[in-house]
Amino acid sequence: MVRTLEVALIGQAFMGRAHSNAWRQATKFFDLPLEPGLHTVCGRDAAALAAFATRHGWRRRTTRWQDVAAEPEIDLVDVSTPNHLHRDMSLAMLAAGKHVACEKPLAGTLADAREMRDAAKSAKGRTFVWFNYRRAPAIGLAWQMMRAGRVGRVFHVRASYLQSWGGPATPLVWRFQKKHAGSGAHGDLNAHIVDLARFLVGEEIVEVHGAVERTFVKERAIPGTRRKGRSDVDDSVQFLASFKGGATASFEATRLAGGHLNDNTIEINGERGSLRWNLESLNELWLYDAAQGPREDGWRRIVATRAGEHPYAEAWWPDGHIVGYEHTFTNQAADTLRALGRKQPLYPLPDFADAYETQRVLEAALVAARERCAVKLSEVR
Amino acid sequence: MVRTLEVALIGQAFMGRAHSNAWRQATKFFDLPLEPGLHTVCGRDAAALAAFATRHGWRRRTTRWQDVAAEPEIDLVDVSTPNHLHRDMSLAMLAAGKHVACEKPLAGTLADAREMRDAAKSAKGRTFVWFNYRRAPAIGLAWQMMRAGRVGRVFHVRASYLQSWGGPATPLVWRFQKKHAGSGAHGDLNAHIVDLARFLVGEEIVEVHGAVERTFVKERAIPGTRRKGRSDVDDSVQFLASFKGGATASFEATRLAGGHLNDNTIEINGERGSLRWNLESLNELWLYDAAQGPREDGWRRIVATRAGEHPYAEAWWPDGHIVGYEHTFTNQAADTLRALGRKQPLYPLPDFADAYETQRVLEAALVAARERCAVKLSEVR
Amino acid sequence: MVRTLEVALIGQAFMGRAHSNAWRQATKFFDLPLEPGLHTVCGRDAAALAAFATRHGWRRRTTRWQDVAAEPEIDLVDVSTPNHLHRDMSLAMLAAGKHVACEKPLAGTLADAREMRDAAKSAKGRTFVWFNYRRAPAIGLAWQMMRAGRVGRVFHVRASYLQSWGGPATPLVWRFQKKHAGSGAHGDLNAHIVDLARFLVGEEIVEVHGAVERTFVKERAIPGTRRKGRSDVDDSVQFLASFKGGATASFEATRLAGGHLNDNTIEINGERGSLRWNLESLNELWLYDAAQGPREDGWRRIVATRAGEHPYAEAWWPDGHIVGYEHTFTNQAADTLRALGRKQPLYPLPDFADAYETQRVLEAALVAARERCAVKLSEVR
Amino acid sequence: MVRTLEVALIGQAFMGRAHSNAWRQATKFFDLPLEPGLHTVCGRDAAALAAFATRHGWRRRTTRWQDVAAEPEIDLVDVSTPNHLHRDMSLAMLAAGKHVACEKPLAGTLADAREMRDAAKSAKGRTFVWFNYRRAPAIGLAWQMMRAGRVGRVFHVRASYLQSWGGPATPLVWRFQKKHAGSGAHGDLNAHIVDLARFLVGEEIVEVHGAVERTFVKERAIPGTRRKGRSDVDDSVQFLASFKGGATASFEATRLAGGHLNDNTIEINGERGSLRWNLESLNELWLYDAAQGPREDGWRRIVATRAGEHPYAEAWWPDGHIVGYEHTFTNQAADTLRALGRKQPLYPLPDFADAYETQRVLEAALVAARERCAVKLSEVR
Repeated sequence: MVRTLEVALIGQAFMGRAHSNAWRQATKFFDLPLEPGLHTVCGRDAAALAAFATRHGWRRRTTRWQDVAAEPEIDLVDVSTPNHLHRDMSLAMLAAGKHVACEKPLAGTLADAREMRDAAKSAKGRTFVWFNYRRAPAIGLAWQMMRAGRVGRVFHVRASYLQSWGGPATPLVWRFQKKHAGSGAHGDLNAHIVDLARFLVGEEIVEVHGAVERTFVKERAIPGTRRKGRSDVDDSVQFLASFKGGATASFEATRLAGGHLNDNTIEINGERGSLRWNLESLNELWLYDAAQGPREDGWRRIVATRAGEHPYAEAWWPDGHIVGYEHTFTNQAADTLRALGRKQPLYPLPDFADAYETQRVLEAALVAARERCAVKLSEVR
Repeated sequence: MVRTLEVALIGQAFMGRAHSNAWRQATKFFDLPLEPGLHTVCGRDAAALAAFATRHGWRRRTTRWQDVAAEPEIDLVDVSTPNHLHRDMSLAMLAAGKHVACEKPLAGTLADAREMRDAAKSAKGRTFVWFNYRRAPAIGLAWQMMRAGRVGRVFHVRASYLQSWGGPATPLVWRFQKKHAGSGAHGDLNAHIVDLARFLVGEEIVEVHGAVERTFVKERAIPGTRRKGRSDVDDSVQFLASFKGGATASFEATRLAGGHLNDNTIEINGERGSLRWNLESLNELWLYDAAQGPREDGWRRIVATRAGEHPYAEAWWPDGHIVGYEHTFTNQAADTLRALGRKQPLYPLPDFADAYETQRVLEAALVAARERCAVKLSEVR
Repeated sequence: MVRTLEVALIGQAFMGRAHSNAWRQATKFFDLPLEPGLHTVCGRDAAALAAFATRHGWRRRTTRWQDVAAEPEIDLVDVSTPNHLHRDMSLAMLAAGKHVACEKPLAGTLADAREMRDAAKSAKGRTFVWFNYRRAPAIGLAWQMMRAGRVGRVFHVRASYLQSWGGPATPLVWRFQKKHAGSGAHGDLNAHIVDLARFLVGEEIVEVHGAVERTFVKERAIPGTRRKGRSDVDDSVQFLASFKGGATASFEATRLAGGHLNDNTIEINGERGSLRWNLESLNELWLYDAAQGPREDGWRRIVATRAGEHPYAEAWWPDGHIVGYEHTFTNQAADTLRALGRKQPLYPLPDFADAYETQRVLEAALVAARERCAVKLSEVR
Repeated sequence: MVRTLEVALIGQAFMGRAHSNAWRQATKFFDLPLEPGLHTVCGRDAAALAAFATRHGWRRRTTRWQDVAAEPEIDLVDVSTPNHLHRDMSLAMLAAGKHVACEKPLAGTLADAREMRDAAKSAKGRTFVWFNYRRAPAIGLAWQMMRAGRVGRVFHVRASYLQSWGGPATPLVWRFQKKHAGSGAHGDLNAHIVDLARFLVGEEIVEVHGAVERTFVKERAIPGTRRKGRSDVDDSVQFLASFKGGATASFEATRLAGGHLNDNTIEINGERGSLRWNLESLNELWLYDAAQGPREDGWRRIVATRAGEHPYAEAWWPDGHIVGYEHTFTNQAADTLRALGRKQPLYPLPDFADAYETQRVLEAALVAARERCAVKLSEVR
């Protein structure tokens, strides 16, 4: 008999929807040691919440997140709220002895993230962070290949997360206001690729060599009015860094890369080979294997959908029948249930300590961008 | 009757071969106001030079470049030697009243480059620099589209030149020794993409925001011996910069990107559209046109081979019958002959003053890399 | 209050799993006039069936499909069994007044298909066929563009469905035995692309111009034994055809195209433009628009994921967050529920009459292949 | 001392230009046992011919091709005229004891081609046919891989040559008139891909299984008038065939495939692997190697530009510095000079006997198209 893990979800927006689906679908496709119970959903808009709960199958609902902490039946709390709320909610849930699965980035500020990491250390519950792109099957395959030495000594990491929805015509939604969003593209997008880079390389970043942050569109229309308001988050942040072993890395997050809808790309070059992945073709891993020699070497497209060979593939559909964005969450939900049911996840899940390291890198990039230790061309003649 | 422009070439290596072909082929395919005469070729290895001259049709040859300066019949000198020789040769040729077409980068040091620029200002002869990738038809089309406002206000430039021949197994050829090569990937590869970025954007770079330089392979086998010697040039240089108008740019040159043979890629994102080009598919320009609206927008592959529509296309082959690497030189030779024959090149040719600006950017990147104004992760907790 | 449509599913294999998911997920993501009730699942293996029913949420189960016909509560029967069983089950369910949603191809033989079509004509219930690839958002967009005249007069259709799992090492599973499978690649794969071609072009095929059928691997290992048995279905069928308006079409289905896992590709060329789609990148539609003129025309990649612009997109995830194979079924379930709830599906759903036309084309191809009206090269000298 | 082979060229249009370049360039890049002398060019338009001869370096010129046959100094005649003239010219040149290098297809009719083949058998001179795409380096590599068993038993060949310049707006140039062109897309484009398929597979085609020929645009504007005239060549021909060893093949030639400028694609699937090549990316060969196993297999992009590894590469430019369309001719000229200088070409050159076999296949396809052994859908109910 499979035991139930009672779950509460805080948040009913896009992420709430993705997470609800993940919890619901996980047991339909995976054989797991625990079955998630959709115990309670929590959100501020009571009317919307009722519809959301009905649609997604949550048994109870509340508009006060403190109720979740107080409810002894709940085992795990899924924090899917805006970043600046992660700290308070997570600390309360950990204090109440619950497991916490928190959306990325870990927190709105490094100080918050540090507190969360520290709280997790001494907590009874376990912590998880929804860096869901680790759970794309092709990324899992890449991780396995890295561990097997297929890339060898790493020289370069090239990671970018390009989107194009933040042009001047886009109104002043909450994502463009620092008080709500904490940061712009940086926290939203660079968080993902810094996590992927750290995860795949298997080393920590030790230095940031320079950064540039831009808010190209400084005023945006306030929805429902004729006025404009100030957009005070970054539209883009690019930075250079290096890993402990000496590999250099470039990171770029932007919402102003016309033509790129959701283009999260990472490439790693090493002494024995290279790997490349892109979120818009998330089932595919490109491998370059130097051992094939100059006559036959070249980039190879692996469609990571084969049961028994590629991570998660046997849970889903036959060879070449691709999965989509939402499956990265479902795979993570499944691995979270495995981890809590004393089984191994297919490969490492990020916890608060891990996500804190990503947050430090993001912070270091901002420091580099703001301290402006740049070289002006006017000085070089 | 078409007048002859007598040309001398200094250098008989790979570049000498490419330039010989360009001068020879230009009049076979273009109607030009001047016909190049293959007057003299100059090189140090007399035996090899004789064979080279015969094969490529140079009428005379010499092992002393000073002879070229002294020969009054010669109108233009093509300097295709290693970088550290560019200065002396170019200054002498300009002093002798000749036009100079110099290989890129302009010089081995910024000081040399400055002298060359200054000499060019007051010289009778005109100067040209072989930034040949400007002459790929698809780059010409991109330049025209930029000028026509198809990209609009520029937000980002993303340029990288990735090669993979510089691994630990590669011996200590001259390109890995600073005294011969001046620099490694930086001068060789970043020079090209900085030129392309400046050319396409049509603005100068005003600031470098950080850089990282690496020599991953510090010792290499000395050819013909069992010993190893020191490789003292960079294997890779990455840097972040910004243009006068505020656009941010990332540049990367490396010889350690396994799987990339000759992958010179540039992408520009702007308010109205985006452009992308890659040297290994040099006939193709990818365009993203935001005006097509969210229902139909997307990256579009233009094969820039159509006579009457795309630069240089009518000189070559029918639609879709692609040209290769060598044609970028031939196109440049043709435009150089146009310029000297009082006609307009199809679009701007780089001269010493222009190439000096590229050299300043390269220098600023090195300053940024070496001043190490980086942020250590150990400082961010 | 949303009314419930009680559904019964016959079949618990791969398709049973895909359909269960579709019925379950449809109401989680779409606002529909009817909610599907997962009333009964029917399968022959009672033990497996119990687990299947529990996992996927079917309330009741039976090993006798006749029970389904006899159960008055059931409104719609989803027939997901091997092809040769479609006829008997569908006829019984229609006779019992139920709606039928049948897997493709419609039947194991043309005669069966004809009976099913005839029965559907006079039935009270409505019929549907799971040609699910019509429901890929990018195919929906292609259909809309065709109807809007973006392609104009059609010249060519090029459709192929290439897989690679049927090599000599693959054992004699039921799919290689005619008595179970009816046909090989032809019924399985060509059925899909003939449907797509008819659907997109919006005309019927009037002639088959030649065909070639091959069984390359004639003997296969019998699983669990050391013996071999006869594989008597086609490994590949290719044929040429033409549409009523004169367009020519080529179709190819094969299980022996090494490197192609699930490569269902269709391209249409017309006077005003072209369209291209591939199942392994099912979110993408490639458009060529001749109106852009020779200077700027080229294939354009549209990622059909934008809410309010592309079919089904608003039900799923944000721009560029791709969906996968399973979503084509969910989209079809949603449209089936719309159709039965007196709403319009987003675009036409195939019924038995429609699927019968596809079956006629498949039959004509076999006639052409077997009548061997070919030209031997020995006759041409 | 290298001996000279005196060459005469008949034809001064597009092909005359490509061939002139090939003869001229071959000795600049290859070390060859014979040096071509550009002896005589022959064309009907005397004024144009003078300019052509000057530009391309032909020493003499004539408007009477019979002069070429009569000139004893000439060793090889390059026949680059419209197809219907190939026979008379080639027979006369062979009778005069000369080597003949004839443009493809071999002749305007099968009867002409047969006569040419027969004449070649007993002639003193050798024959060559300009199936130049065999000389793309990536095709040479594919041929070597086929011979080395990398593909194994062949199951399928998929070849298409798609262009898009023949729409209703295109005027009635000679290529649309049977009396001048012999055929339309079929002779022009299918000739190339039938040759490539035969060459790569290394077997003859034994049967054509069906074909469809279309003239979609039956009337076209007569240039310089307001009238329209009849276009009586095919716009497209598609056919299915099989090789001696049982492999099936599909061929398609069309001038009405919007978006495809010069898209000559061939793919071969076999038991051990697959190969794919495209003319618009002619430096690239895609390889699928089944031996890599299901965990890592996939299509691999090989850029066939590496000296010492890939055919012709050492003659040209460094790794990844691509060559273009014209180089296929230059490579063929070089191999022709090798063959005549008692050296081995890198791999087989087509002669008249070989090209006759291609012509038989083209003829068989026309027979199949015209005998209309098709199946009407009205017969299948």
